[in-house]
Amino acid sequence: MKSAVGVDVGGTFIKVGLVRGSRVLRQEVLSTASFSGPVSCARGIASAVRLLLQGPGGSIIGVGVGMPGLVSYPKGVVHSAVNLPGRWKEVPFGPMLRRALHCPVHVDNDVNLMALAEWKLGAGRGTKNLLCLTLGTGVGGGLVLEGRLYRGEKGVAGEVGHIPVSQEGPRCNCGGRGCLERYVGNREMVEWVKRELVRGRKSRITQLVQGDLKRLTPEVIDRACRMNDPLAKQTWRRVGFLIGFALSGVVNLIAPERIVVGGGVAEAGEPLLKAIRQTLRQRSMKGVRDVSVVPARLGSAAGMIGAALLVQGVGKEQ
Amino acid sequence: MKSAVGVDVGGTFIKVGLVRGSRVLRQEVLSTASFSGPVSCARGIASAVRLLLQGPGGSIIGVGVGMPGLVSYPKGVVHSAVNLPGRWKEVPFGPMLRRALHCPVHVDNDVNLMALAEWKLGAGRGTKNLLCLTLGTGVGGGLVLEGRLYRGEKGVAGEVGHIPVSQEGPRCNCGGRGCLERYVGNREMVEWVKRELVRGRKSRITQLVQGDLKRLTPEVIDRACRMNDPLAKQTWRRVGFLIGFALSGVVNLIAPERIVVGGGVAEAGEPLLKAIRQTLRQRSMKGVRDVSVVPARLGSAAGMIGAALLVQGVGKEQ
Repeated sequence: MKSAVGVDVGGTFIKVGLVRGSRVLRQEVLSTASFSGPVSCARGIASAVRLLLQGPGGSIIGVGVGMPGLVSYPKGVVHSAVNLPGRWKEVPFGPMLRRALHCPVHVDNDVNLMALAEWKLGAGRGTKNLLCLTLGTGVGGGLVLEGRLYRGEKGVAGEVGHIPVSQEGPRCNCGGRGCLERYVGNREMVEWVKRELVRGRKSRITQLVQGDLKRLTPEVIDRACRMNDPLAKQTWRRVGFLIGFALSGVVNLIAPERIVVGGGVAEAGEPLLKAIRQTLRQRSMKGVRDVSVVPARLGSAAGMIGAALLVQGVGKEQ
Repeated sequence: MKSAVGVDVGGTFIKVGLVRGSRVLRQEVLSTASFSGPVSCARGIASAVRLLLQGPGGSIIGVGVGMPGLVSYPKGVVHSAVNLPGRWKEVPFGPMLRRALHCPVHVDNDVNLMALAEWKLGAGRGTKNLLCLTLGTGVGGGLVLEGRLYRGEKGVAGEVGHIPVSQEGPRCNCGGRGCLERYVGNREMVEWVKRELVRGRKSRITQLVQGDLKRLTPEVIDRACRMNDPLAKQTWRRVGFLIGFALSGVVNLIAPERIVVGGGVAEAGEPLLKAIRQTLRQRSMKGVRDVSVVPARLGSAAGMIGAALLVQGVGKEQ
């Protein structure tokens, strides 16, 4: 397998890696905030690619890019990317990079590429129908159906985070109400724990943040959980129940063979996965309720690896 | 296109039709209750097929069968079919019919075949990603994704009726809780209207059933709606909201191009479809929320037509 460059554009970092298979041979990490908009961002990525190619193994077949936004895959047009600086609206990002780099460039949604990577080289290997979840600030999803990356109309499929879990829940940025993400996103999860603590609930979390609730993060909850703290354990049970509740409908609809859970929050591991599995067993239909729910395997490199796979022709539109 | 026989096995009738394209040339209708179980059912279907083939145009390329249950499509094994008389458990129904008829026999789930028919010859023509709904006693669904019938693991995909719309809703036969079907199935819808009437709500429905609430059916609600009855109109708005609520998650996940709504309850037409569309516009994400929602076109023949299509090789496993 030849090398390719995989680019993972995130709200904080842009990772540019020289990738062979599931190995990232070398990488450059750029700060997203250092770019003012699409043009400077494309320039920055092009420089990083050139830098990578100066070293050994620097011959590539192309560049793949995962974007945190709405992407029209075959054209490489970014319709929107609200978490990036500058104005991302109908940006022909693929063609821009192609002109700068003089090589094939493929652009797709970042979670699609994470799903592609986990399916081909990670925790989803060997499956035909796979759902990938990422849990972080937002809740994202990617689908591989019948052995192909599924993009849906306009490439916007897989938005697991915007499956509603309550008819009268809080408004969501997406325009809906009661979306899963509004309950289990990083911020919302932390807010829920804060409210419990403010209400007088005792927990080791208070010590861990030394009384300063501003220091509360999912990692702290995770640490408290490992210390058997009841509130922390309840937090994962609650998050796991809500994810499982949303997924029970997905499982009844799509009947996937496996569900891969990745992203920062997923670091909680078994306590979270157990709660998801339990909810699925209680809520989904016979025949599908025992779907395996496993942690992602490629970690934070999945985005780069998936982007590089796209260049290899894996996940290309059939 | 050559003719095929399409069989639509339902809880009340078994329809056996000689089908060419979207036309049912001749049909036999059997009463499901007249069979004691799989063996007599296969015999009855085989007799009906032979009868059909005695007339003109009686040369066929095979027989397709739609079953109301869990079917392993390529093998023709019916895992379960709870609404049919007798014991349907791991029944090799396809092979049984093949031996009786000496021709190719294909068996699949009935809603899958309805979706196949509407996609190829009905209201879903020309789409690549389609969701088909049937509203009746139960709420069924079928998916065509990337131009292929999507069956999922074990052929059980598409169970839209078992997407939960409430975390603490009533128990469902499927083992879950708060499933869509438990609110908008025929019986549940009628029960809801009855409760409103018993609570003293005034409605033309009372006159239409001549004071006998046992006569209340979805058709009566439909008639009252056409007379501008507020309770009847509210019923469709409520049913449409709940279907739209469940579909808003589906639309965010799958991003279909079109949604086709069929089945008895769908006869309500525009008042229902309008409520579904409105909910989707309010609840789903930009880019997908304007998905078109249209009535099915092939009516009650869709099952036979889809079964015949399966014989033509449409929807065969790739």
